[in-house]
Amino acid sequence: MIKQQQAIKEVFGKYIRNLQDEICRGLEKIDGAAKFKQDYWKREGGGGGWSRVIQHGNVFEKGGVNVSEVNGKISETMRRQLALDGDHFFATGISLVIHPLNPFVPTVHANFRYFELYDEKGEVIDSWFGGGADLTPYYLFEEDARHFHLQLKSACDKTDTALYPEFKKHCDEYFVNRHRQNEARGIGGIFFDYLRGRPESWLGLARDCGDVFLPAYLPIVEKRLKTEFNADHKFWQEIRRGRYVEFNLVHDRGTLFGLKTNGRTESILMSLPPTVRFEYDYQPPAGSEEDKLLQVCLHPRDWIQG
Amino acid sequence: MIKQQQAIKEVFGKYIRNLQDEICRGLEKIDGAAKFKQDYWKREGGGGGWSRVIQHGNVFEKGGVNVSEVNGKISETMRRQLALDGDHFFATGISLVIHPLNPFVPTVHANFRYFELYDEKGEVIDSWFGGGADLTPYYLFEEDARHFHLQLKSACDKTDTALYPEFKKHCDEYFVNRHRQNEARGIGGIFFDYLRGRPESWLGLARDCGDVFLPAYLPIVEKRLKTEFNADHKFWQEIRRGRYVEFNLVHDRGTLFGLKTNGRTESILMSLPPTVRFEYDYQPPAGSEEDKLLQVCLHPRDWIQG
Repeated sequence: MIKQQQAIKEVFGKYIRNLQDEICRGLEKIDGAAKFKQDYWKREGGGGGWSRVIQHGNVFEKGGVNVSEVNGKISETMRRQLALDGDHFFATGISLVIHPLNPFVPTVHANFRYFELYDEKGEVIDSWFGGGADLTPYYLFEEDARHFHLQLKSACDKTDTALYPEFKKHCDEYFVNRHRQNEARGIGGIFFDYLRGRPESWLGLARDCGDVFLPAYLPIVEKRLKTEFNADHKFWQEIRRGRYVEFNLVHDRGTLFGLKTNGRTESILMSLPPTVRFEYDYQPPAGSEEDKLLQVCLHPRDWIQG
Repeated sequence: MIKQQQAIKEVFGKYIRNLQDEICRGLEKIDGAAKFKQDYWKREGGGGGWSRVIQHGNVFEKGGVNVSEVNGKISETMRRQLALDGDHFFATGISLVIHPLNPFVPTVHANFRYFELYDEKGEVIDSWFGGGADLTPYYLFEEDARHFHLQLKSACDKTDTALYPEFKKHCDEYFVNRHRQNEARGIGGIFFDYLRGRPESWLGLARDCGDVFLPAYLPIVEKRLKTEFNADHKFWQEIRRGRYVEFNLVHDRGTLFGLKTNGRTESILMSLPPTVRFEYDYQPPAGSEEDKLLQVCLHPRDWIQG
């Protein structure tokens, strides 16, 4: 058991460092101007991370592709807030958020992580995978939503065709601003957590999902990056980015857990959009392109069945 | 007891509606262009509020001066999150946040509120006042900080000279981004809560503090509103506004309580700044005017003793 887990830790750890390289290369290439800058940081209790951030690019106004590998004692806060049992833990993952400049190019988020819990003797007493990917457009292109979901479905289907519908639903239910009449952050994707008991399967799933990130996102970026936009489009993008901030700071478990357990603030908050607008009671005109986007956030759709 | 409480509810209620008028008039006058717009909203469980919002003014980019008067059953969430006992409640208060356009004019927040708890028979079993006022400059003018604090001190001193030092400390400890090495939101002010047992005294205190709001804030606005600013000043203001968002959405008890108990979202989030910037790991140059402000946020000062 320990040997097998060791192998999974290592295989997944190598995979996400590679994926980080690949994703950064892919995004830099399409951006054409800005480069990712890496900060290595050490965690006080054990481990650390490689934060890579791109800013003020041609295509990407701000984005981060972070890998962390942390370990240590289970703190009181972790016990209370995450309901974690055990003596010490190991956690590794890749987490990315990309905020494009052009309001016709969607924001994207993805995260794949692996967690192990140990007793005092160092025996693994629990382990699981978690993660997902979701898209946050400012203007709706149904073909883009369909493409993104199809890619994720194809990745999930390799493990089990029952997974995509479940993970899609979980995503629609999770990335929601409950304080805004359950308005979703975007057009969803997949979200899964606490995948236990079949570590090789879930490792395979996480890799398959990681592998489709660029094929799911880059074609959409390519297609939309030359779309002309004006100040009104930018205004709407910044209003929606406000909702992104609200979700991440008020509801997102990962963000709050990181901030309240002395995670590295700058790495956690790289997810926040570069420029944001909070307007009192702003409502897009009924029937407008802006309203169309809002309606699919209020009423999640099945993008594949149509 | 009931009669006396009734009187306090009514007197305070009338006072804050008047104060709302007075503050809106004072701010409109100095703005010279924008006017407050009022939305009346009803709370599902009982009561409602008058939200007044100003936007896109000459001087004030966004601001709200809200009064609410709500009542109803104590919900499970209230019991759990506020540790409230009893059968039903009454709460009324004024809450304002003003975000000026010019980065040399500080943002200001003030809030004065009164709470009553009842048993099943409608007998008052607990009641208290809370509130405060604090200033969030983007550039430090020590004379402004001193003026603001002196006004608040003069108001507190009317009730008891022991209050200002205590409330000042409480403010410095409360408006803090714990996830940013305990960086304060601004240069503080006063904060008090759960003032019980001497309702007439605390009513007097709340009124005295409310009365000094305009004298504390307007002279600072007058003095700074013509200061020329450029894109760099605006950039820094928007970075600091990001911290304001972080505090309000991650730490502020009132905001989170409102959002999680189905308060009126637009009235609660009127506190968020109009335009905001989140830059990865931005540090102002050591010794710059921007850094000077940051240093007093990291190391709160006694503005009156100097």
